[in-house]
Amino acid sequence: MTVTTPRGFRAAGVAAGLKTSGAPDVALVVNDGPDAAVAGVFTSNRVKAAPVLWTQQVVHGGVVRAVVLNSGGANACTGPGGFQDTHATAEHAAATLASTDPDQVSAGEVAVCSTGLIGERLPMPELLSGVDAAVRALSPDGGAAAAEAIMTTDTRPKNTVAHGDGWTVGGMAKGAGMLAPAMATMLCVLTTDAVAGPEALYAALRAATRVTFDRVDSDGCMSTNDTVLLLASGASGVAPSEAELTEAVTAACHDLAQQLIADAEGATKQISIEVVGAAGEDDAVEVGRAVARNNLVKTALFGNDPNWGRILAAVGTTAAAFEPDEVDVAVNGIWVCRSGAAAEDRSKVDLTGRDVTIRIDLHAGAAEATVWTNDLSHAYVHENSAYST
Amino acid sequence: MTVTTPRGFRAAGVAAGLKTSGAPDVALVVNDGPDAAVAGVFTSNRVKAAPVLWTQQVVHGGVVRAVVLNSGGANACTGPGGFQDTHATAEHAAATLASTDPDQVSAGEVAVCSTGLIGERLPMPELLSGVDAAVRALSPDGGAAAAEAIMTTDTRPKNTVAHGDGWTVGGMAKGAGMLAPAMATMLCVLTTDAVAGPEALYAALRAATRVTFDRVDSDGCMSTNDTVLLLASGASGVAPSEAELTEAVTAACHDLAQQLIADAEGATKQISIEVVGAAGEDDAVEVGRAVARNNLVKTALFGNDPNWGRILAAVGTTAAAFEPDEVDVAVNGIWVCRSGAAAEDRSKVDLTGRDVTIRIDLHAGAAEATVWTNDLSHAYVHENSAYST
Repeated sequence: MTVTTPRGFRAAGVAAGLKTSGAPDVALVVNDGPDAAVAGVFTSNRVKAAPVLWTQQVVHGGVVRAVVLNSGGANACTGPGGFQDTHATAEHAAATLASTDPDQVSAGEVAVCSTGLIGERLPMPELLSGVDAAVRALSPDGGAAAAEAIMTTDTRPKNTVAHGDGWTVGGMAKGAGMLAPAMATMLCVLTTDAVAGPEALYAALRAATRVTFDRVDSDGCMSTNDTVLLLASGASGVAPSEAELTEAVTAACHDLAQQLIADAEGATKQISIEVVGAAGEDDAVEVGRAVARNNLVKTALFGNDPNWGRILAAVGTTAAAFEPDEVDVAVNGIWVCRSGAAAEDRSKVDLTGRDVTIRIDLHAGAAEATVWTNDLSHAYVHENSAYST
Repeated sequence: MTVTTPRGFRAAGVAAGLKTSGAPDVALVVNDGPDAAVAGVFTSNRVKAAPVLWTQQVVHGGVVRAVVLNSGGANACTGPGGFQDTHATAEHAAATLASTDPDQVSAGEVAVCSTGLIGERLPMPELLSGVDAAVRALSPDGGAAAAEAIMTTDTRPKNTVAHGDGWTVGGMAKGAGMLAPAMATMLCVLTTDAVAGPEALYAALRAATRVTFDRVDSDGCMSTNDTVLLLASGASGVAPSEAELTEAVTAACHDLAQQLIADAEGATKQISIEVVGAAGEDDAVEVGRAVARNNLVKTALFGNDPNWGRILAAVGTTAAAFEPDEVDVAVNGIWVCRSGAAAEDRSKVDLTGRDVTIRIDLHAGAAEATVWTNDLSHAYVHENSAYST
């Protein structure tokens, strides 16, 4: 049920003292092969953290034998020194792994991911000692410990597994705020023992993230550090078709994305925005995102208020094809708006549960898409007004 | 200091029973001429309230002799019946005014503005009785009463005046949430006794709103009802130049925009985002808006936290010209970020006051723009989670 469920992987999670709480904060995932293929998808934010800039280069080479992840600091907006810190982390991990392992590992085959506060340098002595400890703790059962070590404001670790025919995909993710397209998770590592090269992995990963992480929009804020990596060991000896690989990777990403939304900072609602009757999928996604990012819709749902007028006002800000007097809106199955005006009695809508489904029919075509978001609560404001202090 | 400060205008504000609180909820502004020129700027939301659709037609004719405004209901998303209600309101106002006035007024010269909850029909008997009462209460000193009658969640009325050479511009506005470009106020009526035709008025109004209301972004949510009207009576007999008119109208709009931001729902901070060193004004505005709409920046400022990393992450989501490692950021005069990394000690930043200035230097050119916003507070969440219930 973790990144070490597929054959060919070991992992560890240790406490290195980056977090003042003393909780685990350094994770390591090692691909023991025989293959070491990789694909990655990264934040589209133009302000990219040092580990993102580093790992993009590494992934471009197509070979990754290890991933070092740390919570307790994002190493973003840290200047040239921050990039040197990431480079040093990869060098140190490669050297330490090479000393304990018959396979030589070079720094250029070590991905690095960081998460935490932006704008501060990492305490390198603690981090490098943590890497040493993680190498010593590496285990074929270490996936759960790794998932715990990458948590920041997450209240629980997020792990997943998806099964192919004789091969598996495992995964872990962290992220509870700053979730927005396109890339909606902070950090995610997926592993598979399938036989697949970098190009096949990238095709499967891009197809999967497009309909999962890219459609999670918890708070409209795009991170500097978002990274999703997919590592393939080939240890199963099975080479799935592109469709099979995409299906399993998508299932793993979908499960992790739902876990992220379920654990979003301070949220009391898990909201699915289903847009149907769109002229095209892009229109459906644009409408879904506009509603997902609307603070007035989000606060209304926090207040158990099926305020469909705010939903229509959000739809009206988009360039999607629709006529305002043709739009229907249902909240939890009650069509409170038909043809752009009030329809069923809004008092029929039951919003007492945690799950909310908003269905918007644009009556402009046959395309559809679902975007997932959360409500905007007192707890979100509290948590994010106190995070760095 | 109100819409009746310029010569040639009368106004009134009365309680018609649209608000359950019994507070004033119907306002009337009448232009007694000799001219009746008008210009208007409206919400760019594609879901437009019935009074917006009506008033756009009326303003297109270039002549407006009266404006009826009501709080207690937006008359948005109310279907064909809602439009008939707006039409009936204009007809009723025209007939009532004609019965008391030597000047004939036609319904096509009566603008209508509504604000309040979306999706519900207005109680027409109460509204039409309110129009009758407002006609009886019309006074050359009625501007203050009118400004009170258009308040919704506003805690205070918003009035302004700007002086030309022998002529004046007066104005009133309401709006405390759903403030976003492009159109950042819910309702605003400006009056002037200058001599100016519809085209000159429109040129001045568009130039003014572009750098005032269009740059207010309190909560990123665009209303269905935003309307700004500028009425000219010509009663001063003075025909100012286009530059003079634009200057005075801009001053009036700027003052009202600042009053809107000062009274935004639940806000504890009034934030000016000054973007300098931009390659063009559009880039500066785009960067300013991205920061203004970022919930993580807004919650950090609510928590008195100069979290410049979140500011940089917001800048990174734009398409503006800049290099991430060249951006400087100051919060209340302390340059906490230089060249995209930490600079002056963030503990030097004093955020205890209500006013916050964020200055972002993109080092990409000589253009600049300022966008105004608020923080995201517990009170915002509270007020907007309970609004319609």
